[in-house]
Amino acid sequence: MELTHAFSLLHDDIMDGDRTRRHRPAAWAVFGAADAILAGDALLSLAGEVLLEAPGQSSGRAARELSAATRRLIGGQARDLEFESRRIIGVDECVAMASDKTAALLACSCSIGAVLDGAPEPLCTALAEFGSALGIAFQLVDDLLGIWGDPKVTGKPALSDLRSRKLSLPVVAALNAGTAQSERLAELYATPAAPDEPDDEASEEETDEEDARLEEMARLVEAAGGRAWAEAEAGRRIEAAGARIAAAGLPAPVRAEFLHIAHFVTGRDH
Amino acid sequence: MELTHAFSLLHDDIMDGDRTRRHRPAAWAVFGAADAILAGDALLSLAGEVLLEAPGQSSGRAARELSAATRRLIGGQARDLEFESRRIIGVDECVAMASDKTAALLACSCSIGAVLDGAPEPLCTALAEFGSALGIAFQLVDDLLGIWGDPKVTGKPALSDLRSRKLSLPVVAALNAGTAQSERLAELYATPAAPDEPDDEASEEETDEEDARLEEMARLVEAAGGRAWAEAEAGRRIEAAGARIAAAGLPAPVRAEFLHIAHFVTGRDH
Repeated sequence: MELTHAFSLLHDDIMDGDRTRRHRPAAWAVFGAADAILAGDALLSLAGEVLLEAPGQSSGRAARELSAATRRLIGGQARDLEFESRRIIGVDECVAMASDKTAALLACSCSIGAVLDGAPEPLCTALAEFGSALGIAFQLVDDLLGIWGDPKVTGKPALSDLRSRKLSLPVVAALNAGTAQSERLAELYATPAAPDEPDDEASEEETDEEDARLEEMARLVEAAGGRAWAEAEAGRRIEAAGARIAAAGLPAPVRAEFLHIAHFVTGRDH
Repeated sequence: MELTHAFSLLHDDIMDGDRTRRHRPAAWAVFGAADAILAGDALLSLAGEVLLEAPGQSSGRAARELSAATRRLIGGQARDLEFESRRIIGVDECVAMASDKTAALLACSCSIGAVLDGAPEPLCTALAEFGSALGIAFQLVDDLLGIWGDPKVTGKPALSDLRSRKLSLPVVAALNAGTAQSERLAELYATPAAPDEPDDEASEEETDEEDARLEEMARLVEAAGGRAWAEAEAGRRIEAAGARIAAAGLPAPVRAEFLHIAHFVTGRDH
């Protein structure tokens, strides 16, 4: 599972063009895109092999579920790319995209151990649903950090998702709020991004203008309710994840570990 | 298997930068690199799923073998990339690279049906060895076509592998022949490539110079024995493949079909 996650990160970094990930240079920035893509493919292939080589009757089923999750992840990433070429994206389709791109792998991560061990179907389903709710919460928190996260903690520049005009969940919610702020935000999002630092192509003045735009965008997302919605929605998903795990009939220490994971994953900067 | 092959082609085209493949635009040239990579990943994942969903006891083993072949393919591609940064490459390591990059998938393609059907081990091995020998032969023929193939048939520009300074098997054999031509060829390979057509950066004169260099390179590869070696080696591999299939105890019509594949795959321009 960690192998598939690493595959996902390697490809994601390249497509997003992020040169750092958690304060360390991204693999593609160090080794080049071709080698990073190959490393991701090798990890993906290896993840399937590890499952298929596990003893017991359930290794085939576990491998199928990992493949299905990987395919959803890929579909979600493709939809995310497609969004970049569109002007209007609904909140529901954006959540569905995150559900495929992020939550499918977390759902599989949380349940695949039980699947591999031949656990009863209802337990496997409960663990997958826990992971799925957690995955959406994780994406919402990640998107909030992409705007308001502390660069010292996130390792990314301030307002980085606004800088790249990313249609993240709080932004999409704000754009769909139907307020005057939504309209102004759409206008600003339509302006091309300027580089972080002045260079040959961008004067200092252009860089300052862009910084002012980014500050205004962040205020607009908040004023249009995008931030409050994303925070509340993340809370609802974490609550749903907790309820799902509470009803799964797990021993108390195991349940506590899953809840610990939920808070670890979603509390990265708060 | 076709799915994995398509995955391999999609990624290979991007890394080689070839904009056309068999007279048609490459996927990345039409849809962009990100979408083409995702399509390749999706096909790879789907290939595993198709095998795992096949009925019978052997689907897990078949999926493992496909994963192992995919991992060898990826390793071979990585080695191929690494070769680009080196000045000296031995013939043996170049053949080993082709064995991983090209022959592993052909070996798996030829044997996986038998594996999935639960055929006896010696038959599966014979089919894999047939495919492996055929795969090396295919790569040798492909490399010969990359220099001397008719652009009308290959769909690539004349001398295209020399233009990109590709360290293909005939070139590596010529470079390692220890002749005066080998030294001159190494010199020419060290010159940077000029674009096919004159543009802002390359004058008509530079393009003409490059064309003359390409013609000289082709003559040198031939004079140093690279062409003759590759042709003879391809012949030996096809013969070995035929002998392997003849000894496998297959019914005559099945054996004939495999031999037909061998000639189809290696006789693309002859």
